Amino acid sequence: MPQVKAYAAQSATTPLAPFTLQRREPNSHDVVIDIMFCGVCHSDLHMVRDEWGESMFPLVPGHEIVGRVSRVGELVTKYKIGDLVGVGVIVDSCRTCASCKKGLEQYCEVHWVPTYSGYEMDRTTITYGGYSKQIVTDENFVLRISEKLKPEEVAPLLCAGITTYSPLRHWKAGKGMRVGIVGLGGLGHMAVKFASSFGAEVTMLSTSDSKKMDAKRLGATHFINTRNESTKKYRNHFDLIINTISAQHDINAYLATLKLDGTMVMLGIPPDDSALGISGLISKRRTLAGSMIGGINETQEMLNYCAQHNITSDVEVINMSHIENAYSRMTQGDVRYRFVIDMNSL
Amino acid sequence: MPQVKAYAAQSATTPLAPFTLQRREPNSHDVVIDIMFCGVCHSDLHMVRDEWGESMFPLVPGHEIVGRVSRVGELVTKYKIGDLVGVGVIVDSCRTCASCKKGLEQYCEVHWVPTYSGYEMDRTTITYGGYSKQIVTDENFVLRISEKLKPEEVAPLLCAGITTYSPLRHWKAGKGMRVGIVGLGGLGHMAVKFASSFGAEVTMLSTSDSKKMDAKRLGATHFINTRNESTKKYRNHFDLIINTISAQHDINAYLATLKLDGTMVMLGIPPDDSALGISGLISKRRTLAGSMIGGINETQEMLNYCAQHNITSDVEVINMSHIENAYSRMTQGDVRYRFVIDMNSL
Repeated sequence: MPQVKAYAAQSATTPLAPFTLQRREPNSHDVVIDIMFCGVCHSDLHMVRDEWGESMFPLVPGHEIVGRVSRVGELVTKYKIGDLVGVGVIVDSCRTCASCKKGLEQYCEVHWVPTYSGYEMDRTTITYGGYSKQIVTDENFVLRISEKLKPEEVAPLLCAGITTYSPLRHWKAGKGMRVGIVGLGGLGHMAVKFASSFGAEVTMLSTSDSKKMDAKRLGATHFINTRNESTKKYRNHFDLIINTISAQHDINAYLATLKLDGTMVMLGIPPDDSALGISGLISKRRTLAGSMIGGINETQEMLNYCAQHNITSDVEVINMSHIENAYSRMTQGDVRYRFVIDMNSL
Repeated sequence: MPQVKAYAAQSATTPLAPFTLQRREPNSHDVVIDIMFCGVCHSDLHMVRDEWGESMFPLVPGHEIVGRVSRVGELVTKYKIGDLVGVGVIVDSCRTCASCKKGLEQYCEVHWVPTYSGYEMDRTTITYGGYSKQIVTDENFVLRISEKLKPEEVAPLLCAGITTYSPLRHWKAGKGMRVGIVGLGGLGHMAVKFASSFGAEVTMLSTSDSKKMDAKRLGATHFINTRNESTKKYRNHFDLIINTISAQHDINAYLATLKLDGTMVMLGIPPDDSALGISGLISKRRTLAGSMIGGINETQEMLNYCAQHNITSDVEVINMSHIENAYSRMTQGDVRYRFVIDMNSL
């Protein structure tokens, strides 16, 4: 394999910089993908700064990857050279446990392989992500992308898209349901699009009035600025809340807006434990749940749904060399709603 | 109506003592019940000591009531004089909201009337509980009790029974499921009986080895002493956990024992907020829920099920005058598993 151009962090305190990567020779079931676009996920920032304490350096981030197949292993049947494809958060798993057999590779009971800064199934080889010109991925963890949509707008679907689509489907968001979306960022804006597309009555709960117009445009019927307006007016209001906030925040105020048997699904992990008032659950048989990404089959289903309904992410395309500026703007919430790197710029 | 003998607390700091109560004249739909037995629930103790800050004195506790009908209002159709009946935690509700229409009076959206130290639907009249010789209750909130079972052993079913039966049914405990019961007290011992009766594989999680034999006798297949044995051995183990602990405790350790899509249901309310690690929910799409008592129809269903399957509470019958000693023993966990007051002793 040729050496592959990439951008890497050499440590938690150094900025991303050009790096040369050696990808593996494609195995018989591998697909080589020439990366066109890679979305910039908040996880990328957490990982390059080692905020979760599990980063391995040098670290090449990126798990919202869209590109074209440029080479295939001899036993590959699903893809051929030239196909438009994607790679998301997961590039392998045990494939045999109960979770994998259900198509829930993200809950693999043995080990699943993150697209970057994780170990392959051999538990030795470290993975490198999509801030690079090429990636080599087993065909079973590659997604088919429709030519109908703009590939740069598709890239964020591979993480932000499936992470919101999956819980909305699992908890059956649809007609006759009031769905609240907490936080209007990369995840939140996809959650609003999906929930309204599924027929739910969507309310955006945000701390910023500046996002009100956007929320409506994205599909929300209602907007609550939780900084100005007490959620007490909305007691017993929602059937389902998708909470995309990963900063520390008061979850009890949101729980109190759930109806009888309502569910709040947490997608972000605040740095510390959250203070939970159990009485808020008991008083209306409410449930608090968590959800992580989505399985490979469901990711394909989501991509097909997006092609059919013309749903993509709102993106700002950047050059690879502008990544540190993008990170800096992300930390200030200054992105509507996802940066996507144009790999031609590398 | 004659005056009714009772036991009441005059304040949060005075012991229960004899008290005379004026019950209302029975309305056309009311049933007068001569109380035979009344269970002693932990709530009684919290309420007489005003630990939840909502007690009204003088306070007559007791919401696990079994007795015989001694008089009926002119429009009563469900019960006749001599019937063995029960009264639980709820004696009225709005009867018209969506929750009430679903038979979930405990989640009434308007107001539900607790059996003691609460307001009737007129929002003025205060209720008095079952530590008394008689109670007057609307027939729609009276339960039919089978003559097959010992009435003193049935009394605790009206609160401890339905509070555990309802979530086990709602979350579909049954064959092929691993159910964990946390805490072996009044609620816990009923949860073990019901869960094993429904066909689930039941594990008792307790801090006391002295309860191991009891747990097995009550229907548990496995016993984990969580003080000696790390719950880490049981990661991804349970489909459902019924957590009956109302003391402050680490809920994350129990959550980690849930399988993919598993649920832990909280029945007790610890005094302070609980520290919840959101990652514990997200990593296996787990849910944390709460459940409160059960509706009137479901309480009747539970009582019928108990009569059919010969399920009752393990009780220690006491005289009314021994109530303070019983409270004292309860706070030390020294009861297997419910005190029940013989009202003949009053």
